Amino acid sequence: MTQTRQILLAERPKGAPSLETTFATRSVELPAPAEGEVLLRLKWLSVDPYMRGRMNDAKSYVAPFELGAPLDGGALAEVVSSASPLLQAGDVVLGSLPWADYALAPAKRLAKIDPTAAPLSAWLGVLGMPGMTAWTGLEKILGGKSGETIVVSAATGAVGSLVCQLAKARGMRVIGVAGGAAKCARAVADYGADVCLDHRAAADAADLARQIGEAAPDGVDCYFENVGGTTLSAVLRQMNTFGRVALCGAIAWYNDHSTSPALAPVWMTILQKRLRVQGFIVSDHAAERPNFLAEVLPLVAGGKINWQESVTEGLENAPAAFIGLLNGANEGKQLVKLD
Amino acid sequence: MTQTRQILLAERPKGAPSLETTFATRSVELPAPAEGEVLLRLKWLSVDPYMRGRMNDAKSYVAPFELGAPLDGGALAEVVSSASPLLQAGDVVLGSLPWADYALAPAKRLAKIDPTAAPLSAWLGVLGMPGMTAWTGLEKILGGKSGETIVVSAATGAVGSLVCQLAKARGMRVIGVAGGAAKCARAVADYGADVCLDHRAAADAADLARQIGEAAPDGVDCYFENVGGTTLSAVLRQMNTFGRVALCGAIAWYNDHSTSPALAPVWMTILQKRLRVQGFIVSDHAAERPNFLAEVLPLVAGGKINWQESVTEGLENAPAAFIGLLNGANEGKQLVKLD
Repeated sequence: MTQTRQILLAERPKGAPSLETTFATRSVELPAPAEGEVLLRLKWLSVDPYMRGRMNDAKSYVAPFELGAPLDGGALAEVVSSASPLLQAGDVVLGSLPWADYALAPAKRLAKIDPTAAPLSAWLGVLGMPGMTAWTGLEKILGGKSGETIVVSAATGAVGSLVCQLAKARGMRVIGVAGGAAKCARAVADYGADVCLDHRAAADAADLARQIGEAAPDGVDCYFENVGGTTLSAVLRQMNTFGRVALCGAIAWYNDHSTSPALAPVWMTILQKRLRVQGFIVSDHAAERPNFLAEVLPLVAGGKINWQESVTEGLENAPAAFIGLLNGANEGKQLVKLD
Repeated sequence: MTQTRQILLAERPKGAPSLETTFATRSVELPAPAEGEVLLRLKWLSVDPYMRGRMNDAKSYVAPFELGAPLDGGALAEVVSSASPLLQAGDVVLGSLPWADYALAPAKRLAKIDPTAAPLSAWLGVLGMPGMTAWTGLEKILGGKSGETIVVSAATGAVGSLVCQLAKARGMRVIGVAGGAAKCARAVADYGADVCLDHRAAADAADLARQIGEAAPDGVDCYFENVGGTTLSAVLRQMNTFGRVALCGAIAWYNDHSTSPALAPVWMTILQKRLRVQGFIVSDHAAERPNFLAEVLPLVAGGKINWQESVTEGLENAPAAFIGLLNGANEGKQLVKLD
């Protein structure tokens, strides 16, 4: 038997988690590993913002933490004893593991790490989930290209700091946003940001937007979004037409939505459900007009399409027709018929 | 000389346009057409919600209306006299024309219409800009597929009514949302909606969301968004993971943003700038891990990537590390090192 401490979710927090009420510690004894399992000694735990979402009892992309059960997350551990041919004592592994001194886990759900390839803790950072998040957002979601301008919020965070470096390596102009002068200095000195703006020093979203505009003379093509809040509002004002936003996180709203009760739930839903929202204007697609008419004109000519018209007679009544349209007084297409 | 009335923008409205102050009428005399021009007698004017945006003095995808100048928009007209070889008297044309009885226009900016192909006014509706908007959003932005469920707001509008019919023809389950029982009945009877929900009869966004959930037992894959407001909030709650939103309009917020001061400007910006916003979670892209490591591991091993770690010592301090992370107390990757 192996004695271990475990850190449990004692209570689901409303708002910010509290050291006194959210967490609890218990001590339990673990049996020897069953067939296929290993006994692990935990070495490094990853602490990530997404864990706040798992503290709520709500359906999301990861199952919520269970009340009274250990928290878990990305972790590095050393195999103490093994009942699996896949791993042996002394191996170092990466997996989703409880917050504990020791844990049992199925060997097949652990990835063996070569501890000589890079500093061990890097497998939880630049080589781990945050690193791959940075790479995926830049490469697969934004498709950032040389010569484009990208804004990266939380620019010195585990994700943002790698986004900045990878974007710079791709030849992009990189504008970081971070909280505080020290973080901003680091974003420029260590992470390759051309400029980094301190959102805490900005008077409001309009002021931050103005600063972003100055830092991005050609406008913003890509936004790697980690924060929500006023930074979101500020960056959107400087986006170029056809810009792309990779919505990776919204940490300003993880504890609660009260600062933005309408926007926060919409933004969080786009994130959690991985929605794609695309604004479009028909005139951008004028080249498709032959394809449109090829499909719809025969349907109209053949009486297969229904429509309704609200016809207002006389040029002098056009303003009233327009006002009615905005109030939903029309039915179907609003037209003005001239004599 | 040809005498014509013109309807002008007299004042930029704050909020809803007013019959008394927003518009004015003047009478002017038009000269004979200059070379390349035609003199037109207007027959049909299209009245569209996007015109409200043009009344503001703000950069958007179409130039704002000029104060004291005629409003203009899609219109059908007959050629009265021509000084261009492209058109002759009696031709019927489609173009962007002033709100007036008569107008001069360059022939090369007008499209000649075959008045026998379909009812003339249809070229401003199902065969015109609204029709092509419906087709483009469904075909090019949403990529709606047979078996999927789509919600169409403003389902009986000029755009929505065609979206419903085209979506139904593609084998989709079609859920309309409209204002009032009569519009809802029409959406089902004439436009092929399987169900149509009355947003005015719903108690609130949660109630409308519940009704959408009942009408969409498999969830919502596509949302053709024309309205914003509570309908937006309701639909998003029922979207499936990886759902798509074609943001075509937000008529609830065209007159003003006061009902939703945080969300409305964000949503309107996505629309006006045709942004693509995509929520993403790294675990969806696990198959890319070899590509990620192929790029980033050599950079890390070669000392080409900088990162920072905030290391908290001891399992018992993991909760404090987590709380600090949510408050931005960490620098870079937050880790807990176990003894």
